[in-house]
Amino acid sequence: MSDQSPASAELLTRIRERKPLIHHITNIVVANDTANITLAIGALPVMAPAKEEVEEMVGLASALVLNIGTLTEELIEAMLRAGKRANERGIPIILDPVGAGATRFRTQNALRLLSELHISVLRGNAAEIGALVGIAGETRGVESISTGASPELIAHTAAQELSCVVAITGPRDIIVHNERHSEVANGHPMLATITGSGCMSTSLIAAFMAVEADPWLATIAGLVAMGIVGEVAAPKSSGPGTFRAQLLDAVAALTPEQLSSQQKVDLP
Amino acid sequence: MSDQSPASAELLTRIRERKPLIHHITNIVVANDTANITLAIGALPVMAPAKEEVEEMVGLASALVLNIGTLTEELIEAMLRAGKRANERGIPIILDPVGAGATRFRTQNALRLLSELHISVLRGNAAEIGALVGIAGETRGVESISTGASPELIAHTAAQELSCVVAITGPRDIIVHNERHSEVANGHPMLATITGSGCMSTSLIAAFMAVEADPWLATIAGLVAMGIVGEVAAPKSSGPGTFRAQLLDAVAALTPEQLSSQQKVDLP
Amino acid sequence: MSDQSPASAELLTRIRERKPLIHHITNIVVANDTANITLAIGALPVMAPAKEEVEEMVGLASALVLNIGTLTEELIEAMLRAGKRANERGIPIILDPVGAGATRFRTQNALRLLSELHISVLRGNAAEIGALVGIAGETRGVESISTGASPELIAHTAAQELSCVVAITGPRDIIVHNERHSEVANGHPMLATITGSGCMSTSLIAAFMAVEADPWLATIAGLVAMGIVGEVAAPKSSGPGTFRAQLLDAVAALTPEQLSSQQKVDLP
Repeated sequence: MSDQSPASAELLTRIRERKPLIHHITNIVVANDTANITLAIGALPVMAPAKEEVEEMVGLASALVLNIGTLTEELIEAMLRAGKRANERGIPIILDPVGAGATRFRTQNALRLLSELHISVLRGNAAEIGALVGIAGETRGVESISTGASPELIAHTAAQELSCVVAITGPRDIIVHNERHSEVANGHPMLATITGSGCMSTSLIAAFMAVEADPWLATIAGLVAMGIVGEVAAPKSSGPGTFRAQLLDAVAALTPEQLSSQQKVDLP
Repeated sequence: MSDQSPASAELLTRIRERKPLIHHITNIVVANDTANITLAIGALPVMAPAKEEVEEMVGLASALVLNIGTLTEELIEAMLRAGKRANERGIPIILDPVGAGATRFRTQNALRLLSELHISVLRGNAAEIGALVGIAGETRGVESISTGASPELIAHTAAQELSCVVAITGPRDIIVHNERHSEVANGHPMLATITGSGCMSTSLIAAFMAVEADPWLATIAGLVAMGIVGEVAAPKSSGPGTFRAQLLDAVAALTPEQLSSQQKVDLP
Repeated sequence: MSDQSPASAELLTRIRERKPLIHHITNIVVANDTANITLAIGALPVMAPAKEEVEEMVGLASALVLNIGTLTEELIEAMLRAGKRANERGIPIILDPVGAGATRFRTQNALRLLSELHISVLRGNAAEIGALVGIAGETRGVESISTGASPELIAHTAAQELSCVVAITGPRDIIVHNERHSEVANGHPMLATITGSGCMSTSLIAAFMAVEADPWLATIAGLVAMGIVGEVAAPKSSGPGTFRAQLLDAVAALTPEQLSSQQKVDLP
């Protein structure tokens, strides 16, 4: 149990009171699941990818999700426009560098977004984050197969070099920001059996970022929430298809009390 | 109970006999759900967005759905081409102006479609439809937060100005065409907990439009169907994830008898 | 029971041991379902449509899926680039010509892919495959309504003209390659009640192609797997929504023993 217990619970209450708009520029695989999980946690999703409207749309939003899962040249342009406007207006951005390391196109564009925008939180798996700081690993498509260093070292290196909160998710989630380091042990192996569970984590973090100025706390809260709902959904499921439905049910039913009492957060 | 009872039931039977093709030009969030609900009601969906083929594809279809949920410049061009061909051939069009009012890009392009095409039915929430007739409201992304006038006034204003059937969906659905006004009280609050329930309503209306020349009757039938399946699915669900699955099951199991006996239609 | 029994079972074991990456260039309707079924069978999906990265991405993959369900000009370019690189590196390609015959755009581009690339397997319904060899049928959108010849004749004609394995799926799946002809009787009518079951079959075949050099054997194994999971999922479902979830559960739970003992393969 940690000092953040009351904070995460209080943040969930705030999300449900304020219903913040979360602007996503995301991929065709998870657009539905991430919209639904954003609704289920109590926020409002909008998926708006057109460069003609992203600046206006992000102006209405309380957080911006940039997810490069099915990136195209046009989406990069939209992400840069949306991100610059978000930065001007102080709207926090979370970047999900799906598949970074698999192709130069993904690695370089993720780095370009990190260079041209102020990104508050970067969430990915160890190989993706490693690729962004030159630590060679093996990404098989969008999965992290192996990494050239420990997730802890990758997270600390990335947090320092990229000057943002870095969250590496896996069996244990590692969240690093400046001198701060935290780990979230909530979760369930079934989360790895469906596509987009990482992207859904990113959407949950964004919902918490929309109501909490400290992105480190918001990231912990989002990952605790995702972990707990995985734990709740797994025993009610007979496989990935039913798990996916139960996961959404668990998010909608998640209470502040659950966040407090079931979280497994280490602040070593 | 209304005079339309036998009509809606008969229309469902016609859909299942004729299996009309419903051409969708739609968004990346709901493409799967709207295809599946179209199949479940007994029609055949095709999602075809390329400007190179939309004119040929719509020529095979019995109704055309234009949904601007993740609109891009390219999709506008495709919608205009498909819509013009649909008009030439007398194929009815339904427009779902997702997020109109949130950005000028959405508002202006929805108005452009309404101006350059003959649209039979316009279905949206109160803020979206209000934005198209200059009644200021608050759209948070794609959700209607508040409106500057009653849904009834917005619906009547829009029906007059835009010369089409206007359906504003919400706790009570309002359907207006010329001097005709109807309300559908079927539905369940859980419909608002999943993304795309509005878009799915639009697809159901399109299926009924494909077999009924009067778009006002088709719209009532579609909204009654959506409302009833929400009522059937909700008690079988433990949250939005299982509700989404149960909803589709309920559509596939929907009978003409249910449409007749369970509909709550007011013709004030 | 056939000579292929042990082969299919062994191939499933190989997929789960090797976790091959399956690169998909696919459509917005089924991107999520095909990614999830690829994961459930034990392989790793990546959906990467950008022409800037497809050559590099396919270089990491063990099979390439080209699915024209929501084809655009940009996707054709990406498919050609990915396919050429795949051919150079000996990575097998499966083409799913969704909606061929419905529009010239689809028919001509499917033929272009077949002409410019070496395609190992072509999987579609009878009308789609018929359209590619000039046998007129009726495709209503993406559904095969009727065909001008028997599926057997269409499959044999296509296999000869197009020099690849041809799989026509339906109540009985027909798989033809050169002089070889096989039929798979596994399956369930509920598979036709959801969108994308054909596309999901294609993804399963691709996973088997990734671990078996003979595309004819891989295709049989993939279609047997799809048929068996349909049979398992149907009695656990109350309609298409729950069927879709149960189907994914059944794929994840599929054992080599099931593939051997439950397969219905005819080698006439």
